[in-house]
Amino acid sequence: MKRLWDKYPFLRKQLDEFEEYLLTILQARQPLIHEAISQLATAGGKRIRPALVLATGQISKKSSLDNLLPLAAAVEVMHMATLVHDDIIDEANLRRGVETTQSRYGKDVAVFTGDYLFAQAFLLLSGEADTELLKRVARAIKYICEGEIDQYQNRYNLDVSFLKYFRRIRRKTAILFQASCFTGGYLAKLPEKSQYSISKYGKYLGMIFQITDDVLDVASTEDLTGKPVGNDFAQGVYTLPIIFALQDEHVGGKLKKELQKTEIDKVEVIKLIHSTNALSKTRQIVELYAEKARKELKQFTSKKAVQFMSDLLELVMERNY
Amino acid sequence: MKRLWDKYPFLRKQLDEFEEYLLTILQARQPLIHEAISQLATAGGKRIRPALVLATGQISKKSSLDNLLPLAAAVEVMHMATLVHDDIIDEANLRRGVETTQSRYGKDVAVFTGDYLFAQAFLLLSGEADTELLKRVARAIKYICEGEIDQYQNRYNLDVSFLKYFRRIRRKTAILFQASCFTGGYLAKLPEKSQYSISKYGKYLGMIFQITDDVLDVASTEDLTGKPVGNDFAQGVYTLPIIFALQDEHVGGKLKKELQKTEIDKVEVIKLIHSTNALSKTRQIVELYAEKARKELKQFTSKKAVQFMSDLLELVMERNY
Repeated sequence: MKRLWDKYPFLRKQLDEFEEYLLTILQARQPLIHEAISQLATAGGKRIRPALVLATGQISKKSSLDNLLPLAAAVEVMHMATLVHDDIIDEANLRRGVETTQSRYGKDVAVFTGDYLFAQAFLLLSGEADTELLKRVARAIKYICEGEIDQYQNRYNLDVSFLKYFRRIRRKTAILFQASCFTGGYLAKLPEKSQYSISKYGKYLGMIFQITDDVLDVASTEDLTGKPVGNDFAQGVYTLPIIFALQDEHVGGKLKKELQKTEIDKVEVIKLIHSTNALSKTRQIVELYAEKARKELKQFTSKKAVQFMSDLLELVMERNY
Repeated sequence: MKRLWDKYPFLRKQLDEFEEYLLTILQARQPLIHEAISQLATAGGKRIRPALVLATGQISKKSSLDNLLPLAAAVEVMHMATLVHDDIIDEANLRRGVETTQSRYGKDVAVFTGDYLFAQAFLLLSGEADTELLKRVARAIKYICEGEIDQYQNRYNLDVSFLKYFRRIRRKTAILFQASCFTGGYLAKLPEKSQYSISKYGKYLGMIFQITDDVLDVASTEDLTGKPVGNDFAQGVYTLPIIFALQDEHVGGKLKKELQKTEIDKVEVIKLIHSTNALSKTRQIVELYAEKARKELKQFTSKKAVQFMSDLLELVMERNY
């Protein structure tokens, strides 16, 4: 992903400043929290949400980097908080190729490290005098939590519908992408209609991001993604490729049986999915969302920012890490 | 505790409205979250923090119940969030005599139910245009998290100092009491000096509240408190009575040995503590804080609110539940 930022010097420079800013605001007085969150910050991550705040914030010339940085940091810190808590649920040991907080320090530390990060994110948001923005972001967090519980509650449900899947990933991922774009657009003082459009672009980009993430879990190898493959279905979380594969008249039944086993053969499951047209169907859905996202971008005239957002869309569609 | 509210009709009526308001804002669309938080809300609780917001908010006539209710709810919801996450750490099965979220729904649901409540609290705070207040509360949450991790990190540390103990309970409990009083005083538009005084009253009250809570864990019975006794020291959390008892020249060594056992004899530990002057020394500390709290109240002239806060202090000192 870094390669993309490099193609956009305006953003690259700002993201470098962002990294410095992030480390500054993540100083904590409690040594263990400090250690845990410093590790999270330096473990990297794509910084796609703050990049969205920064890029959408520059569609007009009405916002400055000083305005944008705290909010770019707020969405990233919020994202970090959800990851830390997610890893507790998933009992994940690796994230971005690095040991997770829950694995390294235990669930107990992970719970309060996540809470600390949430509070820090709200502290950053509080610097922004506008309560409308605060309300939007607080609501987004509520939706994300509802999505996480939905996902948890529907684990091992082999009858998961497309509708439920889309609703789940919308809340799990797309909402924060949407909020990031709204935040930038709001600070750029875009007309309401444009704020709406850029938020929708964010939402569609988020849907694509999550779908490609779900594809990676059944298609990629651990080396590329930095996290184990087959994690989702092994934990009873059935994603789009699986839902399509389960519908395959030849393979569906066999796949279902395999998924019901206590000891799932991950390689076999992945092989079964690949023997259907599930991945090409999934690809078609991605294309549909991309078309919607491109449509929203059409009305904007700021070349620099729009070119970046359009490129980002293609990159997210093609990502293999 | 309800008896106290009954002696203050102005507050009793407002707290009844508060209960209704709380149930309204805790509606959630996700059925499981809804069920979990409705249970939390109706399980009761002393409502001491919202009562502090409401009472301090009425020291002047400059705030209305409409202003105060959302913020009274915000502090209570925040408190509920920390309880839900606390119970994950403690693996507690009972809270206020009712099964905990983590015990009933599992840790996974408890993590995101707590997060949802935090987001809801910030949403309530966002309705308040003043960012100063938001920042204060967000900072308070950060301190609370640091306190929780400190407590976790110092478990089974038999050399815990008085200083560390007081710092821990300040963050764990006193900070939110302090923030509740600050919130009311701020909305009442008290002069800065009075805001400071009322916040200090809140802090001292919180210290007393936590110390008496810690005393109950070694002195009361399960029937009264609604939670198991001896929970703290069995989990390696050593509180003021234990720290005093460990210093006793006759009993200290024996107590230390008992606490180091894998299977602690709770009754024996409690008996050992009671054989020292630990509880009377603890009582002296409580008196010291009460003296400080009373001093802060002296400057206020609003009879109704001050009488209540003064009575509350005595009640918290005497509480056995």
